[in-house]
Amino acid sequence: MWRPATALLALALAAPAAPAAPGPRVPPTRGEVWPRPLNHQKLSAFYTYDPNVFQIVTKGKSCNLLESAIERYLQVLRSQYSMMQRLRAKAGAGAGTREGEGARGADYQGNILALEVDLRQLCEEYPHADMDEAYGLKVSRRSTLVSDSVWGALRGLETFAQLFYITSDYQDYVVNGSTTSDYPRYSHRGLLVDTARHYLPVRDLELVVDALAIHKMNVLHWHLVDDQSFPYVSERFPELSARGSFAPWLVYSAADIRRVVEHARARGVRVIVELDVPGHTLSWGVSHPELLAHCGAAAAARRGPLHPLQPAVYSTLAALLQELQALFPDHAFHLGGDEVDLDCWEKNPELIEYMRVHGMRSARELHALFMTHALRLLAPRAAPVVWQEVFDEGVPLSNKTIVQVWKFTNDTVWGKEMLDIIRSGQRVLFSSAWYLDALRLSWQAMYSVDPRRLVAAAARARGAGARGAAALAERVLGGEAAMWGEMVDTTNIMTRIWPRASAVAEVLWSEPPPAIEGGAGGAAARLEEHACRLRRRGVPAEPPNGPGFCALD
Amino acid sequence: MWRPATALLALALAAPAAPAAPGPRVPPTRGEVWPRPLNHQKLSAFYTYDPNVFQIVTKGKSCNLLESAIERYLQVLRSQYSMMQRLRAKAGAGAGTREGEGARGADYQGNILALEVDLRQLCEEYPHADMDEAYGLKVSRRSTLVSDSVWGALRGLETFAQLFYITSDYQDYVVNGSTTSDYPRYSHRGLLVDTARHYLPVRDLELVVDALAIHKMNVLHWHLVDDQSFPYVSERFPELSARGSFAPWLVYSAADIRRVVEHARARGVRVIVELDVPGHTLSWGVSHPELLAHCGAAAAARRGPLHPLQPAVYSTLAALLQELQALFPDHAFHLGGDEVDLDCWEKNPELIEYMRVHGMRSARELHALFMTHALRLLAPRAAPVVWQEVFDEGVPLSNKTIVQVWKFTNDTVWGKEMLDIIRSGQRVLFSSAWYLDALRLSWQAMYSVDPRRLVAAAARARGAGARGAAALAERVLGGEAAMWGEMVDTTNIMTRIWPRASAVAEVLWSEPPPAIEGGAGGAAARLEEHACRLRRRGVPAEPPNGPGFCALD
Repeated sequence: MWRPATALLALALAAPAAPAAPGPRVPPTRGEVWPRPLNHQKLSAFYTYDPNVFQIVTKGKSCNLLESAIERYLQVLRSQYSMMQRLRAKAGAGAGTREGEGARGADYQGNILALEVDLRQLCEEYPHADMDEAYGLKVSRRSTLVSDSVWGALRGLETFAQLFYITSDYQDYVVNGSTTSDYPRYSHRGLLVDTARHYLPVRDLELVVDALAIHKMNVLHWHLVDDQSFPYVSERFPELSARGSFAPWLVYSAADIRRVVEHARARGVRVIVELDVPGHTLSWGVSHPELLAHCGAAAAARRGPLHPLQPAVYSTLAALLQELQALFPDHAFHLGGDEVDLDCWEKNPELIEYMRVHGMRSARELHALFMTHALRLLAPRAAPVVWQEVFDEGVPLSNKTIVQVWKFTNDTVWGKEMLDIIRSGQRVLFSSAWYLDALRLSWQAMYSVDPRRLVAAAARARGAGARGAAALAERVLGGEAAMWGEMVDTTNIMTRIWPRASAVAEVLWSEPPPAIEGGAGGAAARLEEHACRLRRRGVPAEPPNGPGFCALD
Repeated sequence: MWRPATALLALALAAPAAPAAPGPRVPPTRGEVWPRPLNHQKLSAFYTYDPNVFQIVTKGKSCNLLESAIERYLQVLRSQYSMMQRLRAKAGAGAGTREGEGARGADYQGNILALEVDLRQLCEEYPHADMDEAYGLKVSRRSTLVSDSVWGALRGLETFAQLFYITSDYQDYVVNGSTTSDYPRYSHRGLLVDTARHYLPVRDLELVVDALAIHKMNVLHWHLVDDQSFPYVSERFPELSARGSFAPWLVYSAADIRRVVEHARARGVRVIVELDVPGHTLSWGVSHPELLAHCGAAAAARRGPLHPLQPAVYSTLAALLQELQALFPDHAFHLGGDEVDLDCWEKNPELIEYMRVHGMRSARELHALFMTHALRLLAPRAAPVVWQEVFDEGVPLSNKTIVQVWKFTNDTVWGKEMLDIIRSGQRVLFSSAWYLDALRLSWQAMYSVDPRRLVAAAARARGAGARGAAALAERVLGGEAAMWGEMVDTTNIMTRIWPRASAVAEVLWSEPPPAIEGGAGGAAARLEEHACRLRRRGVPAEPPNGPGFCALD
């Protein structure tokens, strides 16, 4: 049963008040998958893993993408097995056998021998908005993974790897028999990273992608440039980064971008680039001040957003968009459009005169003019993505435009905003509740919000029937956790993202759970296991639930 | 001019609202020392550093402690110089010469040749509560560092190293001429770390000590064990950690502790251990349930604090205290005494009867009884430290007892509490404003609180004259930032501590500054430099001020 968010939060907040006890506050589960598969039956039979025995073989179609993924997951299992061996050596043979999962009783079925991967259709080259991520998995002595698409096969391999666990006595690396039939609720499950407020090394971006794949998240939203820095090395305008980056080497070359995109492709993760215009562009002005509007008449007046009447703005933008669309193969392209300093435009004499002549009542109409032109500069195949202001300010938008809702307010307003966008014909991405830079937002708070439920509630409040409300809610494509870069850099970004964004991953993949901490969902205990899993796979994740430990070698 | 904390906070909070601009929000200073020396005059002359030329020589007394510190600081300079060389290679010769500090004009005086260290007194072996940390430093072609004590020499070496900086064009590693006369305002400048809610590897503790020394902080308060785990390997009672730790290898042996204490000694950092009794001891009960009081009559009633009438409690405690006092040479010993579950004791039939027979009106008197006995178990030389509840609950305390104030309330209450303790004859440590686990507390908030000013204000509010108020305030020995371990482990502890605790270090060493962000204090710009300095010296520190960068190789 779904309960309102407030009840869930109360539950979550009540838990720490319980009397302390020795040991972890929330003991971890073992071998539970995050995000939770939609249909999963666990069997009592279990198998040990031996790297000299176990193999993964393809039975249906195959391709380099699948073969390299199989190699990667074989390596995950081997490395976890090695970790178990090192922990076993540390723990000693007799340590901590209380739970005794490793005890080899009647349910023990010997070594797991193989996973057969049965891919039914030819591989696609790039992950895309409509990709099929469904898979079926049966774990037994000879396990089978079936999927129509290579993307489903990747998701199934991740589930398969997560079902293995190190026993609580550190003596064995095992997997229970199970059957799984799984697919995502939302097609767009993303994370925004911001490389303009602080530069992030390419290896951090790759590690973020690794972590996304572990969470079956499928979109890296790359907020590439902003007011503070322009780290993108444009082929046509190299001066933008030469003068607009924090330092000459804190930049992304075309080769860097191709590396990240390829790393993501191999893991079924789309990379959607954002070129945020016409605001958030002050760094363009270090080398090209003429592109920015003066906020006043004086030559010394500070400069603000891109100048919406300046032809050079559109020619520069067109060239940049062409370059970036060549580097980022995904059809979705994020043009930003948030927080445009309309006050600045309203102080600019040329723009004041233009607005007067054209009977514009506010600079919002200049924003509409700008965005209308900018959107036309995208390739015809493009699916434009914009921040909610572009919708709020009345910019005419095509039905293939996706509007990302981000403003903080409250869940009632979020529902209404999303419903308005949907009724206007656009589709929606939701981020408002998932701003990772808001330190007050715990994973429990992020876990308690489901955008489709908010839309359905808003629709019902306006008189829609249950079926109509559900149909409207379907227009929410998904959402993104947002890791804005003001207060994070390579030192702290991973632990600021994980495992809080894990909560978002599960909301977007699985059914919202009946209760956060305990109950059938048991999310806290599963997240305790999952955070440790992340660390064992090289992703720094901070403690989610208070006192405890993650056994690492 | 000192302004009230609220004004300072308003200033700090107002700053991010300023229009964004390309580049770092707060450009860093270069070669400014953190914490700010009390008296420091910078000269226009500057010198370049050449590792093949520069040397540090002792002129007065010397000892292994000093020689190894000199070797360490020579290595700091060499490694920073190497980093400059690598950055120079990345930046190219002509990059970013705008500031041109490296331009070798009339103020350039050639290579710095030497630092002569003139230590006037024989070295002490261990840092202690009354150690002398004053030093004088003159930086010129042949620089001189003068101090009476080896501890002052260590502080002076740190200042000397911090005066060097990589120029903004990455072409040179230089130091300006200057004269410094410096000593701390407070004698106790500490950081609490908690190894019971999450285990911290010994190398993390050593890195924390390295960072303390960079901040001229002189106390590591080691909250060793607690309810959740007992990682200390007792010689006499090895079962306490064998069964009470999170895992058999997540423990501190005597050798581990000696290693940390020696690492700290070499850097002039005291290590004060806390054995928190009679509450926060549930982990003792995993192997020794008989030491804990039942919270009720039934044998199945949960167990709470140590049993205050149980002779085995005192014999066990005596043995543990003897072991720990041998391992931790510092005279201060923290006995805890916070958050005792008095409700539990009040439900225990034996204790109910004892209280009745002895005419006790509340379990507070049992707490007093316990602490009185426990304090007597410390060596006669010991300076006991306790949390504020021990004072608040009326436990009789000797004048050599130090009371640590930690409760959240507000600055008026903090001032009154500290004044009450001082008037009762004890000395005070302050921590309430410096809880690093409170994510809402920015470095600016931590920077705006000075405990002696709170005590003086409280004393004046009760009619004390300015001189009397100042004398009372002198009884505040200092304070500690507190990094409780519930939500931190090795993945995130360093960035959670640094650079927020840097603010505490400066409050405790230097005069409180006139303004946080700008003005004469210019703390934000200095902290921007300092956070990058920490990273260059191997201490992960998160961004303190919003968008920016730290040039690392």
